[in-house]
Amino acid sequence: MNEKIVIIGAGNVATHLAKALIKEGNDVCQIYSRSIESARELGIKTGVNYTNNLEEIYSNADIYLFSVSDSAIEQILKNISFEKNPLLIHTAGSISKDIFKDYSNNYGVLYPLQTFTKKRLIDFRDIPICIEASNPESLEIVKRISSGISESVYIMGIEKRVYLHLAAVFACNFTNYMYSIAEKIMQQKDISFDIIKPLIKETAAKIEDLSPAKAQTGPAVRNDKEVIFKHKELLESNPDLQKLYTFVSNSIIKQSLREINNTDKTE
Amino acid sequence: MNEKIVIIGAGNVATHLAKALIKEGNDVCQIYSRSIESARELGIKTGVNYTNNLEEIYSNADIYLFSVSDSAIEQILKNISFEKNPLLIHTAGSISKDIFKDYSNNYGVLYPLQTFTKKRLIDFRDIPICIEASNPESLEIVKRISSGISESVYIMGIEKRVYLHLAAVFACNFTNYMYSIAEKIMQQKDISFDIIKPLIKETAAKIEDLSPAKAQTGPAVRNDKEVIFKHKELLESNPDLQKLYTFVSNSIIKQSLREINNTDKTE
Repeated sequence: MNEKIVIIGAGNVATHLAKALIKEGNDVCQIYSRSIESARELGIKTGVNYTNNLEEIYSNADIYLFSVSDSAIEQILKNISFEKNPLLIHTAGSISKDIFKDYSNNYGVLYPLQTFTKKRLIDFRDIPICIEASNPESLEIVKRISSGISESVYIMGIEKRVYLHLAAVFACNFTNYMYSIAEKIMQQKDISFDIIKPLIKETAAKIEDLSPAKAQTGPAVRNDKEVIFKHKELLESNPDLQKLYTFVSNSIIKQSLREINNTDKTE
Repeated sequence: MNEKIVIIGAGNVATHLAKALIKEGNDVCQIYSRSIESARELGIKTGVNYTNNLEEIYSNADIYLFSVSDSAIEQILKNISFEKNPLLIHTAGSISKDIFKDYSNNYGVLYPLQTFTKKRLIDFRDIPICIEASNPESLEIVKRISSGISESVYIMGIEKRVYLHLAAVFACNFTNYMYSIAEKIMQQKDISFDIIKPLIKETAAKIEDLSPAKAQTGPAVRNDKEVIFKHKELLESNPDLQKLYTFVSNSIIKQSLREINNTDKTE
């Protein structure tokens, strides 16, 4: 029941996952990271043994949880001579579980759908986790561990998971990039970023009860050519941003015209 | 003290503003909208006289609050023969207050920085309002009315306001568009949009304590070429989205490389 877990990685995801697992009483026995600073930081924070030496990774653990950049997994796998037939798990949205198939019969995926930043506290209970595994026994273990830390566990194969990851890039990474552009524009004009925070909060809160496709506001969805023209003028000195503004505005205009043609749009 | 206010417009902003003003005891005496349905809907909801006939707009009110599409303001102005020298106000981010200068000596702007959707309840108290006016007396009135409905009132001229509006387009309109792309991708793969809502919420919540430039996560900021390549493949059947994905990813990569070169970036 209480398997020995080695965590490979000490980045954002590994850090939050390690803390949540330990909090729920799991036996995390070692942390490996290529960077000794990261390994030490997480090791000390959690009171767990740590190393940055591939050769020192325990070979007799029950579970290895890989939370490293996608290309690093295979390289690390080659360097561990597993004594048992351990359960190998990764946390990546876009990698097949089969990356493990030459190293054990027992493997799976535990993909937490969230944006992790080391310094920010997060309640893992609210984070959806998508899981799959190579056999029913492994799935049972991945499910038990996931359900221990989160209230929303979904069984989902790679065919769907890659699209979920892609959707997350738009909804989270690209969204945050839009925030950072807003921040830069405001900084340049000496406007406090605080003024725009209620707007950002409400934009995200809206989608709780409204489909984003219905919640679209702004000059592009109104096809307000005057404002769009003015905004492009303001971005004259930054051709990259001007191009991005034009491209996204045109996409919104195109999409809203399509909707008007497809449906009897009320309101 | 209790000026008679005519509201021109019955769209998203006008609707929320009318409700907030009436709630705070302001004397809203008439609502005009080009569309009789919209005028009636808001008129009935608020118990205020309404019309869609330009000739019926009261000519003797103290304040006219224009919340119509930017190009409509001038056309409507020409059709009202004001008896007094009323206070003319608009609510637009990107229009100068001077649009009113041929019609009265008293005019100004009351720009609420928020995304409004008719059916959604919003607490106006949390909404930042940016104001300016043609003279100190008018500014006093705009300030009093704004402070009555909101706790954050900023005096801000057009030079800054246009950039704030531009920043809002990125932070709100473009962000919501990113949500709608995620929704579409998930719909096509039969994945419930609910799974991604905690991620969207956390992405917005993060900026309360972290600069978005520091909060960036995802394949692009890691310059994870394998995942980016896979995602582009998944978007093969939708060249527009593929182009958008590539463009935004490249911008994030470029920006993060610039930061690495500019500063000693400590994680």
